[in-house]
Amino acid sequence: MKTVFLRKGAERRLRAGHLWVYSNEVDIGRSALKTFEPGEQAIIAASNGKALGTVFVNPHPLICGRVISRDPGQSMTPQLLEQRLARALAAREQVFSRPFYRLAFGDSDGLPGLVVDRYDDVCVVQVAIAGMELLKTSITRALTRLLHPRAIVFKNDSKMRQAEGLPLGLETVGDSVDVLAVEENGVRFEAPLEGQKTGWFYDHRLNRARLQQYVRGARVLDVFSYVGGWGVQMAAAGAASVTCVDASAQALEWVGRNAALNGFSNVDTLQGDAFQVLKTLCDERERFDVIILDPPALIPRRRDQKEGEQAYARLNQWALRLLSPGGVLASASCSMHLGRDQLLDIIRASGRKVDRFLQVLEQGHQGPDHPIVPSIAETDYLKAFFVRSLMPGD
Amino acid sequence: MKTVFLRKGAERRLRAGHLWVYSNEVDIGRSALKTFEPGEQAIIAASNGKALGTVFVNPHPLICGRVISRDPGQSMTPQLLEQRLARALAAREQVFSRPFYRLAFGDSDGLPGLVVDRYDDVCVVQVAIAGMELLKTSITRALTRLLHPRAIVFKNDSKMRQAEGLPLGLETVGDSVDVLAVEENGVRFEAPLEGQKTGWFYDHRLNRARLQQYVRGARVLDVFSYVGGWGVQMAAAGAASVTCVDASAQALEWVGRNAALNGFSNVDTLQGDAFQVLKTLCDERERFDVIILDPPALIPRRRDQKEGEQAYARLNQWALRLLSPGGVLASASCSMHLGRDQLLDIIRASGRKVDRFLQVLEQGHQGPDHPIVPSIAETDYLKAFFVRSLMPGD
Repeated sequence: MKTVFLRKGAERRLRAGHLWVYSNEVDIGRSALKTFEPGEQAIIAASNGKALGTVFVNPHPLICGRVISRDPGQSMTPQLLEQRLARALAAREQVFSRPFYRLAFGDSDGLPGLVVDRYDDVCVVQVAIAGMELLKTSITRALTRLLHPRAIVFKNDSKMRQAEGLPLGLETVGDSVDVLAVEENGVRFEAPLEGQKTGWFYDHRLNRARLQQYVRGARVLDVFSYVGGWGVQMAAAGAASVTCVDASAQALEWVGRNAALNGFSNVDTLQGDAFQVLKTLCDERERFDVIILDPPALIPRRRDQKEGEQAYARLNQWALRLLSPGGVLASASCSMHLGRDQLLDIIRASGRKVDRFLQVLEQGHQGPDHPIVPSIAETDYLKAFFVRSLMPGD
Repeated sequence: MKTVFLRKGAERRLRAGHLWVYSNEVDIGRSALKTFEPGEQAIIAASNGKALGTVFVNPHPLICGRVISRDPGQSMTPQLLEQRLARALAAREQVFSRPFYRLAFGDSDGLPGLVVDRYDDVCVVQVAIAGMELLKTSITRALTRLLHPRAIVFKNDSKMRQAEGLPLGLETVGDSVDVLAVEENGVRFEAPLEGQKTGWFYDHRLNRARLQQYVRGARVLDVFSYVGGWGVQMAAAGAASVTCVDASAQALEWVGRNAALNGFSNVDTLQGDAFQVLKTLCDERERFDVIILDPPALIPRRRDQKEGEQAYARLNQWALRLLSPGGVLASASCSMHLGRDQLLDIIRASGRKVDRFLQVLEQGHQGPDHPIVPSIAETDYLKAFFVRSLMPGD
């Protein structure tokens, strides 16, 4: 393996536990990035020559190095890949009794650029970096040996691939798959493979389980419902009625199917822009006892920060207006550009704006199949707050 | 009611949702604090004369005003006290099927200075401010009407009372009580009323429930075990063995009793200073699969910050050294002077120090019977991280 040398002082972040190397940290005089092939494995060394470990290199993107191991003798062989997948599998099997979970979560599982979601005997894989792309055959082989799946789908449609110079597309090994069957917290779902991300969002599993404690007999509003992950689970937990709101008529068709799949007839849908729907419901003096706000990332890029924060604020204000006294708001964000404290502050300010006394009852995070690397803030992206809203005079 | 006038601009914090008034924020020219009796109720007004609500006043402590209501016409009558206790009770009954919880959590329940822990038909009450002390009879009456307890114990031993000029002492209404019977996550405990705080720490309930997912067949070490809240619950969840460490031989006797109460014979105890015990266990090359670090507040005052952080760091380093590869550390802090991010950073740095790859699996908070006021950081005091520790070469 060749060596990538860092500039003086640039080893500090890696030493603190981080796993990424930025291109401006590389001493290109000693180790020109352009001499590396996309996906090539190399030793990463401090400016004093001390080897710090091994990395996947890609000369093109901003993040040009992704740590494989802190042992400079350890490269990502098919054996290590399988060993780390097996370790990740054992960790999931420890806490989840059913075979539905994120099996591999990139850097957090020692598998940079690799995400695998398991839907029983179907694996949906997302490869985001060139180094992993070169190991595709090994990924298929390892998953086959560990799980004997009937299908492995490489759903390679993430934007990150473009920066890595990788083609977009969908590739299936084994049976062809259109619909994914999911089970979460004892409730069954179907979701289209063609839909968002790998097809399902496992990250909110524990939060959905906790919210079930608050919905017995409640009128529930699920905003940005997608295929009904929250809403249908709330019906299962005894909600009196559930209204799912989404901009996508297709997603709402899946909500209907998922409600029927579990035998619920009290789940209805409202198609439209969430902001507009919330306003209309307010104008019509509708009230809900539990409202779920789980929007897509409203701050996709740093430069959208201000506008995004205002969008979160408007959503939370509308939701608080729509809540019955004593009702519970479940307010979430998956924007990695919105910190946990910032979301809480937006909720606080929204409460003041509409003059409610707010009690934060529970705080939620991504589940244990999405482990966090403590030195990489980006891996800790999901936050949720369950907040009771009380009238100021009470 | 008389009026307390704030200095110009000092209303900003209250407007943002905070519920405390500091003595240096009061315009003592217009409203001399010394003209107020400890515990007197008053209207709180901005410098422009606008009434912002009502407060309990005490001229002596640093926090001289505690908001009762944002409605200037609403004082803390026996009726309002009972209404807020009833509201708090309904909120607990929504999520807890058994009558064991913190029934009232001060400001967060609109009951400044009042904490009530419920142990079925025994209530343990802590009154921290003069305004609530004046309502003691009303508190007793309200709890009696709502719960018909066989005993209400006023365990008035908190340091805050001294700043408020209130006497320390223990007072019981009804049956005399020495031992509290507790049930948490389906496990039974007994704890001495004479012990720490109200006798039990309900705040970690959900975290203990979650950690149960990680202990089947594990060798568990519970450091700062007190009467075995974590340890005995881990035995209940299928741990192979549990070792409880505490400085108090008396607390460890209760651990033994609580293990026996639930029929477990695999819980043993080690008496001694936690730091010393951890070091000795390391020297003896003992290994554990799950280690719980739930120390008392190691940063009691701001000026103890540096020393306290070092203590947390040492504890976490020792624990990581003692963990078997792939083992799980549950690291907690109840210090309000240690932020969530700071504890995570201490854990991160400890991992680097002993050269482990850490995955944060779950993040824990105080349970919903300890609601948080989003504008009062002090109400959000409890944090826990479940962290898997992997060898760097794996």
